[in-house]
This record gives sequence, C-alpha cells and structure tokens, in this order.
Amino acid sequence: MYREEIKVLDCTVRDGGLINDHYFDDEFVREVYKAVSAAGVDYIEIGYRCSRSIMSPDKFGKWKFCDEDDIRRAIDGIESDTKISVMVDVGRVEKKDILPCKDSVIDMIRVATYVKDIDKAIDLVNEAVEKGYEGTVNIMAISRAADNELDEALAQLEAESRASVVYIVDSFGALYSESVDHLVSKYKKFLKTKEVGMHAHNNQQLGYANTIQGIIDGCNFVDGTIYGIGRAAGNCPLELLIGFLKNPKFDLRPVMEVISREFLPLRQKIEWGYLIPYAITAMFNEHPRVAMALRKTPDKDNYREFLESMSAMEVD
Amino acid sequence: MYREEIKVLDCTVRDGGLINDHYFDDEFVREVYKAVSAAGVDYIEIGYRCSRSIMSPDKFGKWKFCDEDDIRRAIDGIESDTKISVMVDVGRVEKKDILPCKDSVIDMIRVATYVKDIDKAIDLVNEAVEKGYEGTVNIMAISRAADNELDEALAQLEAESRASVVYIVDSFGALYSESVDHLVSKYKKFLKTKEVGMHAHNNQQLGYANTIQGIIDGCNFVDGTIYGIGRAAGNCPLELLIGFLKNPKFDLRPVMEVISREFLPLRQKIEWGYLIPYAITAMFNEHPRVAMALRKTPDKDNYREFLESMSAMEVD
Repeated sequence: MYREEIKVLDCTVRDGGLINDHYFDDEFVREVYKAVSAAGVDYIEIGYRCSRSIMSPDKFGKWKFCDEDDIRRAIDGIESDTKISVMVDVGRVEKKDILPCKDSVIDMIRVATYVKDIDKAIDLVNEAVEKGYEGTVNIMAISRAADNELDEALAQLEAESRASVVYIVDSFGALYSESVDHLVSKYKKFLKTKEVGMHAHNNQQLGYANTIQGIIDGCNFVDGTIYGIGRAAGNCPLELLIGFLKNPKFDLRPVMEVISREFLPLRQKIEWGYLIPYAITAMFNEHPRVAMALRKTPDKDNYREFLESMSAMEVD
Repeated sequence: MYREEIKVLDCTVRDGGLINDHYFDDEFVREVYKAVSAAGVDYIEIGYRCSRSIMSPDKFGKWKFCDEDDIRRAIDGIESDTKISVMVDVGRVEKKDILPCKDSVIDMIRVATYVKDIDKAIDLVNEAVEKGYEGTVNIMAISRAADNELDEALAQLEAESRASVVYIVDSFGALYSESVDHLVSKYKKFLKTKEVGMHAHNNQQLGYANTIQGIIDGCNFVDGTIYGIGRAAGNCPLELLIGFLKNPKFDLRPVMEVISREFLPLRQKIEWGYLIPYAITAMFNEHPRVAMALRKTPDKDNYREFLESMSAMEVD
C-alpha cells in the first residue's frame, strides 16, 4: 500500500509508558528516537504533557510530564526529520502548561478524550492550534461510544475544532474489521476538512489488521509502537506497519536493530503482548484494567475462572 | 458473526506436530480432544496419515502416521460429536494405507498439495471419497501460486474432484485482507459445488484477521489451533475464533481451561508465536524454514542482520 498522504506516528514511549508509569530512562528514549528517525517515521509521541498540579510527580516518571528540557536532552544531537508529539488528557493539563509552539520543541499536541468530554477537547485542541501546534483529537474507548453521541461529537469537531486529525482509538482492542469500516466511513461523512486517524490495540491480535483496514478505508494517520509495546496486549507493531507501507522513505532496518537491543531485554522486565485475559476483556468490550489487575495475582493464568467472572459481571 | 453453515476445524495436534515432529504424548492428545469436543468444535485434525514405507517412524512421533489404534486409544471414553480428520500429503501416503471409512475411526481426509501437484491431489481425494470419507483439498503456499495456474487447478477441482471443500492455505503467513478477498472470490467463481476453506498462519499477526476476512467473504470451513500453536508463528487461535463466532453451540470455557493446564507449560518447552524472523520471512513471501533454522542458532535474535540477509537473497 502506497499513498503519499499516509503519516505514521510512533507512540512507543507514550503508550509503552502506560505499563511502567512512564519511568523510561533517557538512554532508552534516545534509542527509540534514533531508530524511529532513521526509519523515516513521520511523528514520534514521547509522552504526556500533564500538569504537576494535577498528576503527582511522585507517582510517575518524567515522560508523564514531558518537560521541554527533558525532551531536548533525549533528542540532543540526533539527526531527525521526525516531528515530536505529546498527548494531553482532557482534565489533566492546564492551559498555562502549553507553551507557545515557537518556544517548544514539540510540533504536535494530541488531545485524548471520551465522547462525553468533546467540548473540553475542542477547547483544548483549539488552544494548542492557536499557540502554533498541529492539533488532533483522539476519541478513546470508541467501541463503547453511542452512535448518536458520536455523530454529534464528530459534527461538533468539524464545525468548531481546529484539529487537523481526529482519531479512532480502540482502547479496548474490541473492534473487528467491519466495525473499523463502519467507523471510518462515519468519521469521513462528518469530517470533510480533517484527516481520520487510527490507533488500534492488540488484545485480540487485531491491532495491525485493523490498522490496515483503516488505511484501506482512507485513514491517513496511523499509530504503531515498536514490537507492539503498550498497555495490556499492546498496539499495532510499528515493524509490521512499515513492512506493509510501500513508501520508499521508510527503512525497517533501524527498527529491527532496536528491537533486538532494547525491546527483547525490556520484555523480560515488563509484560505486554497477546495474553488470554486481554483477549477476554476485549471480547466483552471492556477496558483491560481488570485483566491487568488479574496478571498481578497468583490467579493470573486461571483463564476459565476469569472468563466465568467476566460473564458473571454482565448484569442489567 | 453467525452463519449456521460455518464449520470450525481444530488442527492443534496436526499443525502443532510440525514443531515437535509429532511427538505428543497420549495424555496431551486426549486433553485436546476433550476440550475441543466440549467446546462444540466441528472437526479435530489429529495428525497426518503418512505411509511408513515413505516417512521413517524413527524420525517422527505417532501422530505423523495416525494408526487407527493410536487414535482409538486417545479418544477412548470421551463423549464427543466432533468428527475426526487426518491430513495426507501428496506423495507421502500410499492408497493402501487409506482403509475403507467403515473400518476407520476417521471421518474426513484432507489432502495437502501444491498447485503443481493438483492432479495427484484429485486422484487422492477421489480415492478417499470413494472409500466413504469426507474429502478436502488444501492448496498450500497459496501466496506463491501463479494466477493462471491457480485458475486451472480450481477449474479442474470443480470438474474432476469429489472434494467437498477446497482450502486456501497461507503457509507463509503472507496474505493481507485484500489478498484474501481476491482469493476467496476467485475460489468461489470456480467452485460452484464446493465450499471454500481458510487455513491462515500468524507470521504477521494476521492469522485471525485473515480468517475473519475469509468468513466475511463466504468461507464456511475455517481452521484454528488452541493458543495458536503451529509451525513458526502458528495459526489462527481457536479461542479468538470461537469468541468471534456467535453460534450458540460453541463454548469457550473448556478451551480456556486447557490453555492454562496444557499449553502454558508446553510453550515453555517448544516455541511458537509472533517472533520477528517469521514476520520477516512473511514480508518476503517466503517459507518460514529459514527463520526456523535461524531460531536454532546463537544469532536467533539478530533481526537486522536476518532482514539484510533476506534482502540479499532476492536475486533475479
């Protein structure tokens, strides 16, 4: 598949940070930035910009806050055409923590939101665009969005927001290809002046497949992470995505190298990837948090029991 | 997805046997048979029927040969409506080793073939059907089949064979959803009186996704293996497939239980699943054998080097 408009965003450090509370050391972040840059990836998302007044720095590593100095130190001296993105969560950042873009090393701000908070998200993304950034709105937990509410949110985003991209975020890894078709076509119906993005999770081994489906349907912004690192079963693996996209600007080799050197050892220390409890929560269209909690108990591999507990949870 | 015609075949023991030379012990096979039967799966493929005059019994375990007595012992006393299948490879079985169905515990014989051997496959499947079995032809390495030769083979299968199902076998795990669409539509064009089957591999994490795509396109016979066990990256995971199919006859719980009890310990002993070298061979549309060989060397995790060696291999 080759379409010049397709932009790839690597969110290894940002989504990977969800499984270690954003405590990556500088050297790891440098290696990721180096590999992603050499691979010709368009954007790298290096963490969250949260306000310290809201999220405690005692509980999270520096990539939860992405101070300008920390980013500069991590990328210092590395040749790169890759733009830098940070994510902001509605309700976890104050506007004063978003500098004017000309004073920042950041190029893009992605606003993560639920459908219900779309007004706040629009306010936040417009602030970012006004300050000079590229801005996106990423609608999380999309597999739970009520159809009529999503329609209204998309209509509002088209009319009121200055975001250039609106993402489908399959937080629960619950989408199938037919749901991707349905959502992309809905997004495109409303978003006449914006691009559609796809951020898929791999709980049912469909992260990559759903991303391809999104591309076929017309998404031009797609997310991946190296070796699929990310919350629960992780994300669409960047290496597969780059292998699929035929744009000659991409080079798979640096990604291969950094997987061998950094990600195999890391996988020994922190857990992500296909595990049955995540498949089960995805089948129930649930957040993986209950499966993540299970994985920290002695019952972590009692799959039948976990399945039965999920069934029992379904009440009216 | 619910379509009454859809039949699921579990080939855990058969395809799993490709990574341990078919040396599963009886207890493991019994546990798989028990779980698959309780799960309501339509067929179980328990191994190959090879002739001992052709394949040496010194080099392979008993599930390479599937003697009637061995099968009977493995299933003895277990309540089941699941039909039993064995696979035969063109050139590895003599007709005399296929008993009349009335004297056998086997219900279905699946003939594995390359496009070039289609005449032999037709001869073999017709022999099986004549003897009373359900018969299928499984066209391997389909991602390498020349379009005109595949057309001819499918036309012949329709005209000359008594197979009730013809499978797409993505031996290299190289297909994308669009190639699945293309192949299923081609199969259906030629095979007016037969069902289309899908056997997918997971080298690019698309085993399950391509199976769903096949179902959407009209395949009514689909293969899975428990916990995705199988050669290289393995197969479409049966647990995901059953989670997707909404037919009330399926029960996921016994599959969950057997994964915890049998497959987690087994995975510590033998290797399958997503590993970068298999993703690389799939991207090059190559058999995973060179990646499987790599995995037995000290360079098993030198992914960049392996990628470069694969690129260098591409000659005219």
